[in-house]
Amino acid sequence: MSLFITFEGPEGSGKSTQARYLKDYLQQAGYPVILTREPGGTPISDAVRRLVLDGQWTAMEPTTETLLFAAARAQLVGEVILPYLKLGGIVLCDRYADSTFAHQGYGLGRNLTELREITRFATGGLQPDVTFFLDLPVEQGLQRKRKQRDDFRESSQLALPLPHLPQPTPSQSEHWNRLDAREIAYHERVRNGYLEMIAADPQRWQVFDADIERESLTAQLLAAVQPYLSKIQTLS
Amino acid sequence: MSLFITFEGPEGSGKSTQARYLKDYLQQAGYPVILTREPGGTPISDAVRRLVLDGQWTAMEPTTETLLFAAARAQLVGEVILPYLKLGGIVLCDRYADSTFAHQGYGLGRNLTELREITRFATGGLQPDVTFFLDLPVEQGLQRKRKQRDDFRESSQLALPLPHLPQPTPSQSEHWNRLDAREIAYHERVRNGYLEMIAADPQRWQVFDADIERESLTAQLLAAVQPYLSKIQTLS
Repeated sequence: MSLFITFEGPEGSGKSTQARYLKDYLQQAGYPVILTREPGGTPISDAVRRLVLDGQWTAMEPTTETLLFAAARAQLVGEVILPYLKLGGIVLCDRYADSTFAHQGYGLGRNLTELREITRFATGGLQPDVTFFLDLPVEQGLQRKRKQRDDFRESSQLALPLPHLPQPTPSQSEHWNRLDAREIAYHERVRNGYLEMIAADPQRWQVFDADIERESLTAQLLAAVQPYLSKIQTLS
Repeated sequence: MSLFITFEGPEGSGKSTQARYLKDYLQQAGYPVILTREPGGTPISDAVRRLVLDGQWTAMEPTTETLLFAAARAQLVGEVILPYLKLGGIVLCDRYADSTFAHQGYGLGRNLTELREITRFATGGLQPDVTFFLDLPVEQGLQRKRKQRDDFRESSQLALPLPHLPQPTPSQSEHWNRLDAREIAYHERVRNGYLEMIAADPQRWQVFDADIERESLTAQLLAAVQPYLSKIQTLS
């Protein structure tokens, strides 16, 4: 028996942080566990991810982008996730197929049926046993993200330029205010997409209010994962 | 009106050479024409192609490879082929979707229905108006390829090393003889796949015996393309 848990949620909901805490807890409790993330997670997937995110490709077709993300996912599933599950381990994944449906499908309006077909091909149909949805009002998530960027900007002004990191944008400018409206509308569509998927498959999803203290949310996730652990053998 | 012609055929059948001759002829006759090839044909597609062919990725999943080739194709179709066809031009393409079906489907035994689904997504369903199949017995094509490699090896021994070109393999060694048997079986499956696709859609395909003089084949292809040219406006 094995356990495949994915983390989904809007920007700034703390998915990555919570996934790390859960992984550390499970590891210390003696369970065989790995944490990975999408897009990326293998050298090939990372190379594909760099290719997708490379700023020089301004002419990249939406279909190209979808297929590249699917390629990165196929590699992650085949090289990392499936083999580890076959060994009886726990795999935590920071974002998975639902992120594609939420962002490319509901957010950008691409054909959901086609996205599902390509995802099924890329994953061989592999579904998470449980998906934790960390929910947060959209504006709040974006504010958190902006704060992270500003904090980064302040700290990075003391250091050398970091060419590989995205350049932070001034958060107070008019430019930002204009972007915000579009950004909010987009992220509202994404969040509504998640809520629709949750309503359609409530057995798989567990929803958490992410607008609480970090420690309280970690405690809730630990409690939520307990019922699934009985089927996993510890490493002892 | 526009015209989309693809070239298919076994290794060593002279597709690329013939496509170049046809392109030169059409250009000199005043037609708007471009020649492109798969995989590749755009900077993004070339970057994807380099990623697929990069020897360091020994662990690349078959699904990853399929999706990467599809991504390169999506970009070529969206950035080059479709816009040129919309302008009323002629597009010649050295290999296209049929190569995927023949090699990955019939040759490697991957699921043809899935390959067709992914191809339809990548191309938006774009089909060639006509496909020229340059046919050659498999062993003969492989011999031609080997000769090209040997010629290259002889000529390259006089020059500086060319790190970007594939290293030629000694053609007389036991290693090669062992490879040949597998290679021949594989290419037989590929050729039979082509013949099956031709039988299923004879309107689109035109078959040529490639085991003749280069000039005679060019003349036959020029004759075959004439009926399609009436609908294309010359540039004059």
